[in-house]
Amino acid sequence: MYTPKVEPLVVNYKTLEEFKMFKEYGLQELSMLEDLETNIIENDSDSPFYGIYFGDKLVARMSLYKLDKNFNKYFDPAQDYLELWKLEVLPNYQRKGYGQALVDYAKSFNMPIKTNPRVKSSEFWERMGFIPAEYNMQRDLGENPLLWFPQGVQQLESE
Amino acid sequence: MYTPKVEPLVVNYKTLEEFKMFKEYGLQELSMLEDLETNIIENDSDSPFYGIYFGDKLVARMSLYKLDKNFNKYFDPAQDYLELWKLEVLPNYQRKGYGQALVDYAKSFNMPIKTNPRVKSSEFWERMGFIPAEYNMQRDLGENPLLWFPQGVQQLESE
Repeated sequence: MYTPKVEPLVVNYKTLEEFKMFKEYGLQELSMLEDLETNIIENDSDSPFYGIYFGDKLVARMSLYKLDKNFNKYFDPAQDYLELWKLEVLPNYQRKGYGQALVDYAKSFNMPIKTNPRVKSSEFWERMGFIPAEYNMQRDLGENPLLWFPQGVQQLESE
Repeated sequence: MYTPKVEPLVVNYKTLEEFKMFKEYGLQELSMLEDLETNIIENDSDSPFYGIYFGDKLVARMSLYKLDKNFNKYFDPAQDYLELWKLEVLPNYQRKGYGQALVDYAKSFNMPIKTNPRVKSSEFWERMGFIPAEYNMQRDLGENPLLWFPQGVQQLESE
């Protein structure tokens, strides 16, 4: 069976140009471009992005960042966890398992995961085993957090 | 000149039913409905939402929440600020100044404002005088924060 290969993406002009194909291009990408142009970061620096290539074309990507347990507001017991964002598969490459391959990659670190996906994607995240956080206004504001728990971890009860 | 009237929205079944017309219906609304059904909150309780009615129909809304200055990561000098989210005008009522009326209402508190709008709305926010925050990955993750400063307030420099 064909398994899509997930790889870390480095920051260079080619990657940043490819990012423009994704709907959720925003301040983060603009800031990476500026950092590259003004030599604040080097060509081919590490990035928080992981992606899947089809041939030499980037067709799916996500961003992952490890938060220290001191920032934990979601998981019990308190521990480091991953924030996952900008999971996106280009339209012509959807329904081929690329999204799941990225999520499986994130799960492979065996840390709890939090994401705040677009409103219409709840079916996908449910299939991936994520559950909605219990909404807490001061913490969540405009977010709709979804959580994934490795074994032995549960949702932190709100005060 | 006609000025749309912005009013605080109370939590009741009518309001929650009207919220279903808005695209950004999510965990927050579901949690409000559950709290009402299980009597955790009373009918007509205060909510963080403000809205504009056209006749008896809710046609625009936003959510506002005051964050304590201890949570401040955006403004200098440190001070309480407002988080604004779910600003949305129903499709048939757009381009009539309802969005601006809501934002003007938020500004009238004379506190700094932070919002994390949908990607495609940057022109609107620019007209409203909001500017993009300098992206900081650990703070912003998947957000594209936009900021509004009352007089005497500026962006907090990142460390």
